[in-house]
Amino acid sequence: MADEARIEHGLARINEPDPFVARAAQAELDGKTKPRGSLGRLERLAVQLAAIAGTTTPEPLRAVIVVAAADHGYAEEGVSAYPQEVTHQMLANFANGGAAVTVLARELGADVVVVDAGVSVPVEDERIRALRIGPGTANATHGPAMTRAQAARAIAAGLELADELATRGATALVLGEMGIGNTTAASALHAELLGVAAAEVCGPGTGLDADGVRRKVAVVERALAANSPVGPDPIDALARLGGFEIAFLAGVALGGAANRVAVVLDGFIVCAAALVAALLSPVAPAYFVAAHVSTEPGHALGLQALGLEPLLDLDLRLGEGSGGALALPLLRAARSILVEMATFATAGVTDAGR
Amino acid sequence: MADEARIEHGLARINEPDPFVARAAQAELDGKTKPRGSLGRLERLAVQLAAIAGTTTPEPLRAVIVVAAADHGYAEEGVSAYPQEVTHQMLANFANGGAAVTVLARELGADVVVVDAGVSVPVEDERIRALRIGPGTANATHGPAMTRAQAARAIAAGLELADELATRGATALVLGEMGIGNTTAASALHAELLGVAAAEVCGPGTGLDADGVRRKVAVVERALAANSPVGPDPIDALARLGGFEIAFLAGVALGGAANRVAVVLDGFIVCAAALVAALLSPVAPAYFVAAHVSTEPGHALGLQALGLEPLLDLDLRLGEGSGGALALPLLRAARSILVEMATFATAGVTDAGR
Repeated sequence: MADEARIEHGLARINEPDPFVARAAQAELDGKTKPRGSLGRLERLAVQLAAIAGTTTPEPLRAVIVVAAADHGYAEEGVSAYPQEVTHQMLANFANGGAAVTVLARELGADVVVVDAGVSVPVEDERIRALRIGPGTANATHGPAMTRAQAARAIAAGLELADELATRGATALVLGEMGIGNTTAASALHAELLGVAAAEVCGPGTGLDADGVRRKVAVVERALAANSPVGPDPIDALARLGGFEIAFLAGVALGGAANRVAVVLDGFIVCAAALVAALLSPVAPAYFVAAHVSTEPGHALGLQALGLEPLLDLDLRLGEGSGGALALPLLRAARSILVEMATFATAGVTDAGR
Repeated sequence: MADEARIEHGLARINEPDPFVARAAQAELDGKTKPRGSLGRLERLAVQLAAIAGTTTPEPLRAVIVVAAADHGYAEEGVSAYPQEVTHQMLANFANGGAAVTVLARELGADVVVVDAGVSVPVEDERIRALRIGPGTANATHGPAMTRAQAARAIAAGLELADELATRGATALVLGEMGIGNTTAASALHAELLGVAAAEVCGPGTGLDADGVRRKVAVVERALAANSPVGPDPIDALARLGGFEIAFLAGVALGGAANRVAVVLDGFIVCAAALVAALLSPVAPAYFVAAHVSTEPGHALGLQALGLEPLLDLDLRLGEGSGGALALPLLRAARSILVEMATFATAGVTDAGR
């Protein structure tokens, strides 16, 4: 119960981004030396970041990418092109800086925190945060992937990490993940939480062929049937359909909103975590920035349900937070436009758009 | 004739990016610790940049944004929401660093070269390169916007600047522009060079309403009629339908290709320059990177004709090179993926995609 109380406490701290600052930021943008609205999506992003920060002059972005990894009982069902050992191997690759997200973080100026939320065989490495909920989830086609207490513990741990990172100065948290089989967990959660058929949200993940996708649809259908009725509580849905890293990232998303920092969503699996967070706190999505829309068919549906407009559309399907990292320069650019551009008045440029 | 000879000399230096390096780069990417192709558009960009640089380990990007400004006789026809004096005023704003593109260049790490290719009233400022072809073009609805000799001089000057910047170490040239009335020139060139109706390529530019767009369509139709037959030579088309900055940027695009550096295209006006360059050198587009697709309806048509797939789609309609600047982090990211990521072999990760 302590974990559920911590979650309640976190939810109570979430307030909407400042609507007065949003209006002031839009007014400032309208005075800058460019036609009104001509920077399109970048202007909307600048307004959101200002409202989140509570000021029309937000500080330069300090971004931390949280890459949470876990293993999945779904992997027993042959739903991935890769064997389960890859989750473990990739944790070491993250720590050593050779993975895509770590390379992109260095190039684009973000810190990375790697979290073991429940890989089957732990990696002994002090550069990895061991916040292990268990040695991988159970196979959800036979019943709940985890207990409700485990789901709550994972969410509470995510909230706590967000508190810590915000306290240390982060102004944006990028959510990333790794876990063989986790597009299946994300598909099951999307189907359940959006009320759509498994076939609408299942895709090739990291590389299934058409037969593989059909198998995945069947696995998701069995998981939904084995856990029916899931019930209206998002924590229950999360527990039954799984993902320790998904639960953990739902907590990070809520913690980001509670700390008034931008929460940058990567791909489809992160979107499942964001959907859970949004069901727990309808205000939280105002803090979310959708970095991109992936090739996974359920992703666009999830983003639509969250009311989010993706920044990038680059046929990405890697995860790890890689798409989130790629969007960070756009956040920086949006802020710089708002804070650093000259106005018509100061630059002596004729303003026809008045 | 000296200018035309310099253009011929430039065209003769353009060879296709290295196809062997392209193949080797794709093979390298396939060995990196990620599912094959899972970084989508970013991987295709990495392959292109490697082929352009002639090595699978290209050096870190050094980008220069060339912002060329000029005035247009079209402005007499009331085709812009802004008065012509704004071109002059914005040149000073570029020099002072208050414009969107200069703010973005600072934030995203690019140099800016501001070129006066023919503003009606010159700005006296040593930070602006005065490569003036004339005090604005003539009104193309009454006949040619400029002489063929002027068009050739502008192209040759652009080629020369590209040579200089490449010699000083630039590995990417971003094309940007400023010029009240220049979406009309770009529309006329798109209509002529793509063989489509004026109504298909005319849009609101920096902020016309529906009536304004209809007027612009009529202006383009009159310009096309007044200059008919334009003839098959792209330099003739450029001279008749105009734009000193467009002609200059066509030269920069060709010069970038001749020097084997990436040429990053911004919006619709730059696309007109790229179309001219592509007609002069069918190999040149292999060096082009389309930063974004704007809201201007002709832009998507132009990019399609060039065979280019835009990186961003952010409802931008500012120009200046602003969209080009926003794409630079993606070029950096693509290079870093290729050069810095671990391979399955070195990281000890099981490769199922073989």
